[in-house]
Amino acid sequence: MERYIDDELKQLNTDLIKMATLTEEAIYRSVEALVKQDKDMAQKVIDDDNKIDELELVVEERAIELLACQQPVGFDLRFVATSIKINAEIERIADLAVNISQRVLDIAGEPPLKPLDDIPRLAEVARWMVRGTIDAFVNRDEALAKKVIYMDPEADKLRNAIQEELLFDHMMKDGTCAPRALPLYLIARHLERICDHATYIAEDVIFMVRAKQVKHHLEELDGNSG
Amino acid sequence: MERYIDDELKQLNTDLIKMATLTEEAIYRSVEALVKQDKDMAQKVIDDDNKIDELELVVEERAIELLACQQPVGFDLRFVATSIKINAEIERIADLAVNISQRVLDIAGEPPLKPLDDIPRLAEVARWMVRGTIDAFVNRDEALAKKVIYMDPEADKLRNAIQEELLFDHMMKDGTCAPRALPLYLIARHLERICDHATYIAEDVIFMVRAKQVKHHLEELDGNSG
Repeated sequence: MERYIDDELKQLNTDLIKMATLTEEAIYRSVEALVKQDKDMAQKVIDDDNKIDELELVVEERAIELLACQQPVGFDLRFVATSIKINAEIERIADLAVNISQRVLDIAGEPPLKPLDDIPRLAEVARWMVRGTIDAFVNRDEALAKKVIYMDPEADKLRNAIQEELLFDHMMKDGTCAPRALPLYLIARHLERICDHATYIAEDVIFMVRAKQVKHHLEELDGNSG
Repeated sequence: MERYIDDELKQLNTDLIKMATLTEEAIYRSVEALVKQDKDMAQKVIDDDNKIDELELVVEERAIELLACQQPVGFDLRFVATSIKINAEIERIADLAVNISQRVLDIAGEPPLKPLDDIPRLAEVARWMVRGTIDAFVNRDEALAKKVIYMDPEADKLRNAIQEELLFDHMMKDGTCAPRALPLYLIARHLERICDHATYIAEDVIFMVRAKQVKHHLEELDGNSG
């Protein structure tokens, strides 16, 4: 026989997956809009963000109600506490997809500054990290959460390369291209921030699984996998 | 006679205030470092961030233990749930002070691009909002939390003015000044992000006081103050 609390926990899980799926889609569409110079698509990412905002409220209310009425303990308690934090992280990731879309609106229609291959590559890393971190949460998969964390420096490297090219090869050589270069510079930053948030979630997942803090203590990740 | 849970809640309160105080100081010092072109001061903000990180872990562990062992209900439950979220927000604000300090390290020693009066003004707004939002939390002061939320558009306006000046009057006119202009551009963004986080906290405070979500529903702020 299932406990009533199990249904509640499952529902929380389902809502978080739904939110994460919409968010991953928002990242994808914001970068598609950049590549295709498609203002309508960018605008749609911005308009659709309210669905994710609404879900955030639903998840948060459900989690707090669960704490209040079911008084979970042990793993269930850590699951609910982690859900509250992951919920906020996913919503911030979705906001960053909105930020990217706003930058796309700034430059769509302008002659392209450079071939766009590196930004979509960073976007792929970002989506992989977001998907991975949510899979790690759903499957309580510590190994996958670690993979996400170890991918973050790759994202930093990609962002640095993009930003340096924009600064040295474009903005500094021809100041008048700054209005087209700056939005790309910021998009690289937004994408790398998405990777940071995916990393925070992965740290929370490891905490949840292990009942132990790993944040700010990454050096312990390998030494203590018990 | 005081309940044991009251001591625990007070301690949570005290730790959050400590964290917020260190964070406000970090914002102040990061912008002082900018104005005085003081690399050591900037480096100290970066080095000291681990104290805030450590406090974040302490608060989070305390909050979850409180949920698990004391099973608070009603206002106490909302207070603890809100603490978990505010804790994460303050840590992000401190990270933004670190980001500002990193940008200061990029440009300290270079000839100043322009008189720095607008960025310190935005920094003042940011610090006021952080202090206000924490005071609102501590004193359960919904009116103050609202003031913080209504200050946010002011921060947006200041950031826009700073960024437009840097783009149009500096970067576009002389591309070679981009390495000095871009860090200032980003600092304006970091400061405005601090204001956003202060706003998120203020929304959480109103939720805590009212037991009602206001996030993404700001239009309800005035209509329903019951």
